[in-house]
Amino acid sequence: MLDRLLEEGALDAFAMPVQMKKNRPGTLLTVLCKPEDGDKLTELIFTESTTLGIRRRDEQRQTLARRWVTVATQWGEVRMKIASLNGTVTNYAPEYEDCRRSASEKHLPLKVVMQEATRQFLRRGED
Amino acid sequence: MLDRLLEEGALDAFAMPVQMKKNRPGTLLTVLCKPEDGDKLTELIFTESTTLGIRRRDEQRQTLARRWVTVATQWGEVRMKIASLNGTVTNYAPEYEDCRRSASEKHLPLKVVMQEATRQFLRRGED
Amino acid sequence: MLDRLLEEGALDAFAMPVQMKKNRPGTLLTVLCKPEDGDKLTELIFTESTTLGIRRRDEQRQTLARRWVTVATQWGEVRMKIASLNGTVTNYAPEYEDCRRSASEKHLPLKVVMQEATRQFLRRGED
Amino acid sequence: MLDRLLEEGALDAFAMPVQMKKNRPGTLLTVLCKPEDGDKLTELIFTESTTLGIRRRDEQRQTLARRWVTVATQWGEVRMKIASLNGTVTNYAPEYEDCRRSASEKHLPLKVVMQEATRQFLRRGED
Amino acid sequence: MLDRLLEEGALDAFAMPVQMKKNRPGTLLTVLCKPEDGDKLTELIFTESTTLGIRRRDEQRQTLARRWVTVATQWGEVRMKIASLNGTVTNYAPEYEDCRRSASEKHLPLKVVMQEATRQFLRRGED
Amino acid sequence: MLDRLLEEGALDAFAMPVQMKKNRPGTLLTVLCKPEDGDKLTELIFTESTTLGIRRRDEQRQTLARRWVTVATQWGEVRMKIASLNGTVTNYAPEYEDCRRSASEKHLPLKVVMQEATRQFLRRGED
Repeated sequence: MLDRLLEEGALDAFAMPVQMKKNRPGTLLTVLCKPEDGDKLTELIFTESTTLGIRRRDEQRQTLARRWVTVATQWGEVRMKIASLNGTVTNYAPEYEDCRRSASEKHLPLKVVMQEATRQFLRRGED
Repeated sequence: MLDRLLEEGALDAFAMPVQMKKNRPGTLLTVLCKPEDGDKLTELIFTESTTLGIRRRDEQRQTLARRWVTVATQWGEVRMKIASLNGTVTNYAPEYEDCRRSASEKHLPLKVVMQEATRQFLRRGED
Repeated sequence: MLDRLLEEGALDAFAMPVQMKKNRPGTLLTVLCKPEDGDKLTELIFTESTTLGIRRRDEQRQTLARRWVTVATQWGEVRMKIASLNGTVTNYAPEYEDCRRSASEKHLPLKVVMQEATRQFLRRGED
Repeated sequence: MLDRLLEEGALDAFAMPVQMKKNRPGTLLTVLCKPEDGDKLTELIFTESTTLGIRRRDEQRQTLARRWVTVATQWGEVRMKIASLNGTVTNYAPEYEDCRRSASEKHLPLKVVMQEATRQFLRRGED
Repeated sequence: MLDRLLEEGALDAFAMPVQMKKNRPGTLLTVLCKPEDGDKLTELIFTESTTLGIRRRDEQRQTLARRWVTVATQWGEVRMKIASLNGTVTNYAPEYEDCRRSASEKHLPLKVVMQEATRQFLRRGED
Repeated sequence: MLDRLLEEGALDAFAMPVQMKKNRPGTLLTVLCKPEDGDKLTELIFTESTTLGIRRRDEQRQTLARRWVTVATQWGEVRMKIASLNGTVTNYAPEYEDCRRSASEKHLPLKVVMQEATRQFLRRGED
């Protein structure tokens, strides 16, 4: 459901377990999207889930500036996602899909590829 | 608390576990209601819980059209709740209280009654 | 992170576990603050966490009137936080830090100190 | 489900939200019972839930000594559950069902009745 | 991680959010496997996750008898998983992967395919 | 509570939100300890919490070999915790308390200190 919403244009989506009336467990789904995608995604949620009601509200969203840097590892190239606030790098992380592909091709643990990509990225700062 | 709020006019209510400051566990209670019920339910929450603060915000709510269909099972009648989007049925579910009553009277598992009511409902589509 | 936000002026802060896309666990952080502190706390969250986006919205907040009463226990004074709705006391609780300090000094279980402070507070009503 | 299990002899039962394979939310049900009730409760869970498997293990359980004390409030009698460790009272709490009945009969908030019962219990220590 | 464990022979795997020391959020991973797969899966978890310790215990596991029934829908065949206790059917559910494939090929909501497969299965009982 | 248990000799401790009977939220506390510390910690939990019962079971625990490496950052020394499986490093992480102290002294974000310590550690591998 989460991945389906992202394919259809949601900016983000996540789920939380909640306790509902009559002691029943439920799931609260939260979806972020551009205002113009609201109706389409509302219809998708009604069609794909068993919910009877959806709440909508306007929110302001601030995001860090993001860019991609490609690093070379012995098992292939991996993109690093770099986030900056006022020009200062605050976060960096290897792209999950790139690492998973290399790990799968080379029969390596995913964690090994992610650690190596991070190491190569941090080494660049040395130059 | 959830059931009490629904009795007093809340449209929906659910609870989520949260982690608060100083490493203490807490519960976030969310209540949906019509704007005119806001003050009454706010007072109820302050009176019945130990919270010191309640936040309120306006939200738009979209719901599916709902209707009830009664089906006959060998253990009595059960209402099915039918939800539709633009005229197409998207969800159906036996009413919990109806099934629970039949199950209790006939000493049957609740699940057996719910499955049978659903089966009878789907059979109708055959006619 | 929660305690850091409260030091910097947040009125409240709490965290909830969420399930994100691609089957990854995450944490949803919620921070309440005065409108004029929004920019400062947004920058703090970007600097201290790995989030790439923060959502903001306006909410109305209603709080109970609060006052402090000091009670004497055999292990020292403890403040009780008293909350009232329309002049009626609805909640009372011993201050965590006061009890923790007494418990630590006297090598007593924290719970014993909290129970005794509550008992002394309720006795006052007898006079 | 939880209340049903307790009716049938479970010593305790609680539920936890879990994240299952293929990104689906689930609920982990934990039931404590005497060894001789294991088979009966296993069958009940299979009959009433949609689970396909149940795990069982032996555990040692230590409980506090418990006794009941009845206190009089202006709205009727309420039992207090008192727990002791090596002869020292470590916990006390008003019985939920007793308070709920008084609150319902007198149209009072449940919390008011629970607070008053606790107050009357603690006053006894004064004598 | 969950799907990886199942590929390598785990009988089941699920994750739960936990609150760890120093106010940090964590995830508790539970894996069920045959005794002879314990060492292999322990090594996999150490290699793929950041955990520093794994606990193991023996448990008895009881499962319902399961069989597969294939039903025909207008969009292709779908397997139903049927679970029985002492010869009585207690659960039935359409196979997720079969429905997802049909839904994707025919550009239908997944829920529509799952509902139709269930309806066809229940109709069989009519004959 | 978690930190208190660790001070008294627990090997690990964590908490999970659970849903209890009568629709009440609760917290499941899990504590790992050596067999000889079981009685002491059981008594501590009974004394400090409101629980009425504690379950105990034996489990096998496997841990990675761990060692400490000290790295120099421009803001002081930070220990890195290195975990290995069969001689291969599988995890490394800067020690939280060391980073927090440097961050507090130099008025830097905690994350900046942790990132720098990790960078210095990975650089060592270059030599």
